[in-house]
Amino acid sequence: MAAKNDTEVIIDGKVYTLSGYESQEYLQKVASYINDKIGEFKSMEAYKRISGDMRSTLLALNIADDYFKAKTQAEKLEEDLEAKDKEIYDLKHDLISNQIRMESDEKTIKELEKENKELLLNKTRLETTLEDALLGEIPGAKKNNNSNNKKS
Amino acid sequence: MAAKNDTEVIIDGKVYTLSGYESQEYLQKVASYINDKIGEFKSMEAYKRISGDMRSTLLALNIADDYFKAKTQAEKLEEDLEAKDKEIYDLKHDLISNQIRMESDEKTIKELEKENKELLLNKTRLETTLEDALLGEIPGAKKNNNSNNKKS
Repeated sequence: MAAKNDTEVIIDGKVYTLSGYESQEYLQKVASYINDKIGEFKSMEAYKRISGDMRSTLLALNIADDYFKAKTQAEKLEEDLEAKDKEIYDLKHDLISNQIRMESDEKTIKELEKENKELLLNKTRLETTLEDALLGEIPGAKKNNNSNNKKS
Repeated sequence: MAAKNDTEVIIDGKVYTLSGYESQEYLQKVASYINDKIGEFKSMEAYKRISGDMRSTLLALNIADDYFKAKTQAEKLEEDLEAKDKEIYDLKHDLISNQIRMESDEKTIKELEKENKELLLNKTRLETTLEDALLGEIPGAKKNNNSNNKKS
């Protein structure tokens, strides 16, 4: 846990000592932001004529407006994030479906390739057998053929 | 473009007329938020003893703190959104790669199935031819077989 520390900041020309867990850098950034707002107001003629109460309220309203705008933006971004999360969920779902489909397709391809290989082997075997049969390569004829081959 | 309108709000018991493009609902929400802050301060003993200037600064600091926290949250959410966008881009890229792969696999399956079908047909044809050859189904013998069939 961060240690509590005292930070001196200057707001509207006055020195304030702020005590808290926030870093010096953060508190100086906040003070600087408030001074910028006051500086903007001071550049307006009408600001000089209004009471201290009104100035205080004007400053509070202006900063609160920044706060609500940032808050609204954060809420919108949160909605966007939810939509993106849903999109990511759907995309991952599609990817898993594809993965399953691809694995099944790969299996089918392997099976078909195996079947084709066997059919091709079978075809060659049948063609050879048929060739032999058509050439009269039955046991009796085979001998004759062989003797012919020997003669040539 | 929205019309400029005047809205009366009560802040710290005083009536202010705010002129601007913001809706009445929004300005009442902002006023209510500021009044809640002041209400919290008033419940603290120390608040009663501090000057108007200090009260104004305390209020400004408190609201500005809310603003910076909301702003930081919005910035973090924007970073998250960027990361999600990158994730979505990558997932879509993967999906497209898968799509291409799946289409190629489907084509391969169709080709293999066609080849397979042709090989099967070929096998049946070869088997029939071989059977005929082995049974001596030469033109002369064929006639005899046909006449046998007609008799039965």
